[in-house]
Amino acid sequence: MKKHNFSAGPCILPQEVFAEASQAVLDFNNSGLSILEISHRSKDFVAVMEEARALALELLGLDNKGYTALFLQGGASLQFLMAAYNLLEHKGAYLDTGTWSSKAIKEAKKLGHVDVVASSKDKNYNYIPKNFSIPTDADFFHCTSNNTIFGTSIKEFAQTDIPVVCDMSSDIFSRQLDFSAFDLIYAGAQKNMGPAGATLVIVKDDILGKVSRDIPSMLDYKIHMSKDSMFNTPPVFAVYTSMLNLRWLKAKGGISAIEKENEDKASLIYSEIDINPLFEGFAAKEDRSFMNATFNLTDQSLKEKFDNMLKEGGINGLNGHRSVGGYRASMYNALPKQSVSVVVEIMDELERKA
Amino acid sequence: MKKHNFSAGPCILPQEVFAEASQAVLDFNNSGLSILEISHRSKDFVAVMEEARALALELLGLDNKGYTALFLQGGASLQFLMAAYNLLEHKGAYLDTGTWSSKAIKEAKKLGHVDVVASSKDKNYNYIPKNFSIPTDADFFHCTSNNTIFGTSIKEFAQTDIPVVCDMSSDIFSRQLDFSAFDLIYAGAQKNMGPAGATLVIVKDDILGKVSRDIPSMLDYKIHMSKDSMFNTPPVFAVYTSMLNLRWLKAKGGISAIEKENEDKASLIYSEIDINPLFEGFAAKEDRSFMNATFNLTDQSLKEKFDNMLKEGGINGLNGHRSVGGYRASMYNALPKQSVSVVVEIMDELERKA
Repeated sequence: MKKHNFSAGPCILPQEVFAEASQAVLDFNNSGLSILEISHRSKDFVAVMEEARALALELLGLDNKGYTALFLQGGASLQFLMAAYNLLEHKGAYLDTGTWSSKAIKEAKKLGHVDVVASSKDKNYNYIPKNFSIPTDADFFHCTSNNTIFGTSIKEFAQTDIPVVCDMSSDIFSRQLDFSAFDLIYAGAQKNMGPAGATLVIVKDDILGKVSRDIPSMLDYKIHMSKDSMFNTPPVFAVYTSMLNLRWLKAKGGISAIEKENEDKASLIYSEIDINPLFEGFAAKEDRSFMNATFNLTDQSLKEKFDNMLKEGGINGLNGHRSVGGYRASMYNALPKQSVSVVVEIMDELERKA
Repeated sequence: MKKHNFSAGPCILPQEVFAEASQAVLDFNNSGLSILEISHRSKDFVAVMEEARALALELLGLDNKGYTALFLQGGASLQFLMAAYNLLEHKGAYLDTGTWSSKAIKEAKKLGHVDVVASSKDKNYNYIPKNFSIPTDADFFHCTSNNTIFGTSIKEFAQTDIPVVCDMSSDIFSRQLDFSAFDLIYAGAQKNMGPAGATLVIVKDDILGKVSRDIPSMLDYKIHMSKDSMFNTPPVFAVYTSMLNLRWLKAKGGISAIEKENEDKASLIYSEIDINPLFEGFAAKEDRSFMNATFNLTDQSLKEKFDNMLKEGGINGLNGHRSVGGYRASMYNALPKQSVSVVVEIMDELERKA
């Protein structure tokens, strides 16, 4: 039976990326060697790393604009620490829009003063705070563009003259933004970019070198930049597969093309949530994420029936996160619209049968 | 043409591991989903992580002895920092046997006092210092069991009552040791364990919690332990492939069985180096590594000829590291003895022709 994979991450990638990555594990570039057994200093892998870094900048429209792309390890969780290590001297301004923002705040507090400029914790993060002010004397402003768990996303980013740091783990490469408005962008690969185990960091070169602390080498963006993202052995397979995925996105027409598809998929499910009396959305309508739609049954007695119907339909990964409950449809770039249609049909069928 | 892969790391893994890993990228456990697109919280992946952790302890003879195995990210380079973050309060005692020891020392110095108890830098690290004393008031003693670049390894570990930390990146699972003599062992996966992107950490539970600093979450062993090595999204594919490789090693008879094979392979090449007048070894004989044999031509005018013969023989990755020059045969667990025979035959042929 065909599976429809709504996993929140690690998540679905294009089938052709799986096929090519699988082949490379047997024989990479007709070298007679697996991608897993070649030196990261080999000409062929250096070319992979350079193509991945260049594609990331190109797709975001940041090539030749003073930015560097790095593929590191440790996920966004290590970036919470690295961002603060490299940028926090006097104080950092943080917007708290959910679990991941809170974790970033927690780690930054170990290194210096943190000013939480606004939070939506009062309503279990079901909206994005607006009309807050950002202190002009902060070293940087940190935000999370998409909140995977709660199903919200920032539609309009706050304007400020200080450097802007953004955790884009769950929506990078999914929608057009003026990426040049950001000074540091980071994202765990395992949503729209590749398999778990690589982390994309896009850093504007001129924001570095302004803190007085002695930064450990592995946490120092400048050291990774000076070694072309090869300060230590990179996660070879995760970088390679990310590169395949970025090639796929470019061939599709880039972010503007995929954004249209993502809007279509999101409209489809949100329309059903709004029209079907058996369901209600969790996130405030104006802040709804196009990547993660969070919703619940209005009548919990239908849960077993609905869950069985989802199972019979081959739907994987639709359970909501424990912080919110209910359901969450994660609709990353590679998820076909047809998978969303199948869920919507099941929601519709539930209404007809109930 | 069949390739003989002597790459120093990432390096050769068993062909059956490549085959199984490749299949899992297409369909993992007959789930209809790729190993790259499943949730790390899924039952099937949690089982992989638990099996990998259990196999690591079992193969080292450390199960039920108060140790925990973790699969983290960032390689040994991040462990240089984490070890010091978690253990260094008053001072750390370090043995300097090469490039990686030096890097560990450099990172530790950013966090506290470091006492370098001995160094072989005076002879470009071609030997292992002996008869040094370890200060009894140090928090821990740090050493590197195998020096990949220089081709040396520690045969007898220094005795001490303070906790012993060992970077075993390039020889873990290759030879029998009394692993219970160590309190913290770490190893980048990309030699004898799996693909680049995972790092094995084996920590004796009772050495933690003794430093006064506030440890960032991602650098805190206790936090990773409390979350069963899933504090953040783990490098799913690298952990899975490591598990396949540890299963392979167990099926072969474990470390004692592979140690015998590794000794055979090492004897074969070192005998040729010693008997063939065209070659000379780099490392002191008593400290020779069974994983990485470093050697050079006695007459550099033969280099082009020898290099061409290696190329024609399908030999990959035999170039020495720039710090030493010459050649380096890395003979990790999965390298067949036949590959070593091919190199030895070429060395022999060079002598006959020269």
